[in-house]
Amino acid sequence: MKKLINAADTVVADALLGIDAAHPALRVDHEHRIIYRADTARPNKVGLVSGGGSGHEPLHGGFVGFGMLDAACAGEMFTSPTPDQMFEATTTVDRGAGVLHIIKNYTGDVMNFEMAAEMAEADTGILVESVVTHDDVAVQDSLYTAGRRGVGVTVFVEKIAGAAAEQGRDLRSVAALARRVSDSGRSMGVALTSGTVPAVGKPTFDLPDDQMELGVGIHGEPGRERVPLAGAAQIADRLLEPILADLDFTRSGTIVMLNGLGGSPLIELYVMYAEVKKILDRAGVDVARSLVGNYITSLDMAGCSVTLLAADDELITLWDAPVETPGLRWGR
Amino acid sequence: MKKLINAADTVVADALLGIDAAHPALRVDHEHRIIYRADTARPNKVGLVSGGGSGHEPLHGGFVGFGMLDAACAGEMFTSPTPDQMFEATTTVDRGAGVLHIIKNYTGDVMNFEMAAEMAEADTGILVESVVTHDDVAVQDSLYTAGRRGVGVTVFVEKIAGAAAEQGRDLRSVAALARRVSDSGRSMGVALTSGTVPAVGKPTFDLPDDQMELGVGIHGEPGRERVPLAGAAQIADRLLEPILADLDFTRSGTIVMLNGLGGSPLIELYVMYAEVKKILDRAGVDVARSLVGNYITSLDMAGCSVTLLAADDELITLWDAPVETPGLRWGR
Repeated sequence: MKKLINAADTVVADALLGIDAAHPALRVDHEHRIIYRADTARPNKVGLVSGGGSGHEPLHGGFVGFGMLDAACAGEMFTSPTPDQMFEATTTVDRGAGVLHIIKNYTGDVMNFEMAAEMAEADTGILVESVVTHDDVAVQDSLYTAGRRGVGVTVFVEKIAGAAAEQGRDLRSVAALARRVSDSGRSMGVALTSGTVPAVGKPTFDLPDDQMELGVGIHGEPGRERVPLAGAAQIADRLLEPILADLDFTRSGTIVMLNGLGGSPLIELYVMYAEVKKILDRAGVDVARSLVGNYITSLDMAGCSVTLLAADDELITLWDAPVETPGLRWGR
Repeated sequence: MKKLINAADTVVADALLGIDAAHPALRVDHEHRIIYRADTARPNKVGLVSGGGSGHEPLHGGFVGFGMLDAACAGEMFTSPTPDQMFEATTTVDRGAGVLHIIKNYTGDVMNFEMAAEMAEADTGILVESVVTHDDVAVQDSLYTAGRRGVGVTVFVEKIAGAAAEQGRDLRSVAALARRVSDSGRSMGVALTSGTVPAVGKPTFDLPDDQMELGVGIHGEPGRERVPLAGAAQIADRLLEPILADLDFTRSGTIVMLNGLGGSPLIELYVMYAEVKKILDRAGVDVARSLVGNYITSLDMAGCSVTLLAADDELITLWDAPVETPGLRWGR
């Protein structure tokens, strides 16, 4: 294992020190491992809290800031944060209008966020709503998940719900919008190599030099099938076929994310995006907006994922609204 | 070799298709392999042209846009663009105020940009100035370079000279500023693994599992020494010691870039940044601004580099000026 770390058991704490030092617009509670906006959101803005296992950076801490999340809880590597972390984040960001929990569909995350919501409502009377993302079309159930896994659409939910919250919409409205975004997205990924969890010290799974894992999960969960390594055009086709079969993306604009899993360089992501765009053009999908880069990673896994979001004018307007986070930023 | 590509000999052309498709604010001349701003800079703005071998993305194409470059020439993988490409870019972006060439110090790049400048001046009368970056303190001469190699400070030169050009400064002033930035920056990198050039099909160099290459070049050129793999704190120390010994960074603010080389995930870059920041604090270096992420990469090489820029108030003000590129973006 070759990694830029001090020790396997300090990676998350050390990375939080780095995030804290690098981003004056963020504030890190190192005791609770929560990343907050350094500024205070205005009264009556709905609070947005997300979180999950570490190892997927910039998700979620890199999406804290104006126009997106108010707080992100960092779990241990590939491990759900605790209900206590989520409770602390929820009570801290509440500005009187309630808090939305944005949760990727993994059993531990869902259970712990539910407990945190119950604690917050019982102890403090804060209203909490939640949205559980479940956009990965690869498999129905998975290693850590009942139902589909939540992956790339989470970035879209955080951005679009964040914009709605900045507009001053109420909790019910922001939550309904977040669920609509979640239900309008589909994703699938492919691994060329496994990532390595520092505390384990060896790759999560073995993948022969001539094979790739189609539909891999962001923790290295098994995908749909192992197939011979193929070219970018064929990979794009294998990722998009099940996505396009699952939802009609020709009836609105579409926001596309071509996401790197951590170990693949940007030049390869652009090669992949070119192939994705060709297929979408042929399929009559109108690409309204696009993102190419590392947004939801799996440590040093080589590979990528594609997420499509069927986005009507309202969603595109909210997508275009200003955002200022380390991971996504455009002008206000 | 496991890569998201179609074929080794189409990677650059395919990636340019992806860049073109992903970024409506850019325009790609596929024949000449030049990335331009899609909008036209206003008359009498000094034009900024850079370029170099591909494989270092987002450098340089990802830094084209308002407040930074007007055009970037993409060479073949790790290979200088041709004088013809540079000539084409230079004549296209000239708005009557002349053009600045921003060149990393590699023999082929320097020679070809010189030829392009001579062609432009002789054939069209366009005034051309140039700046050659040479910030890598690792080695004096290298595989493709006489003198020090140009690396991370190039990002700072492109940003700061770009801001000055948007302000309407003249060519001589922008060029002098660019040279001042170039002279005020120092860098050093470390590789944990070699990258793999697609057309070669195997890693550029062999590096045992328990060793790292200190002072590696962005094309895999040999560095200072091979040493046993160490923790992030020791790596940060080994990178900063020669940088801090080479230039006094305690007499002004400092802009710091912790740059990933392509195959290292963001969580590791934050771990490294935390260690860099601790050392700079102890050394009395005032970190005025910081960047953590992949800005000048070496295909899928695992590792990182650190660049420090001694930045007075003028440079920091220009650093903070609005920029809108795929690789760097903050508000206007």
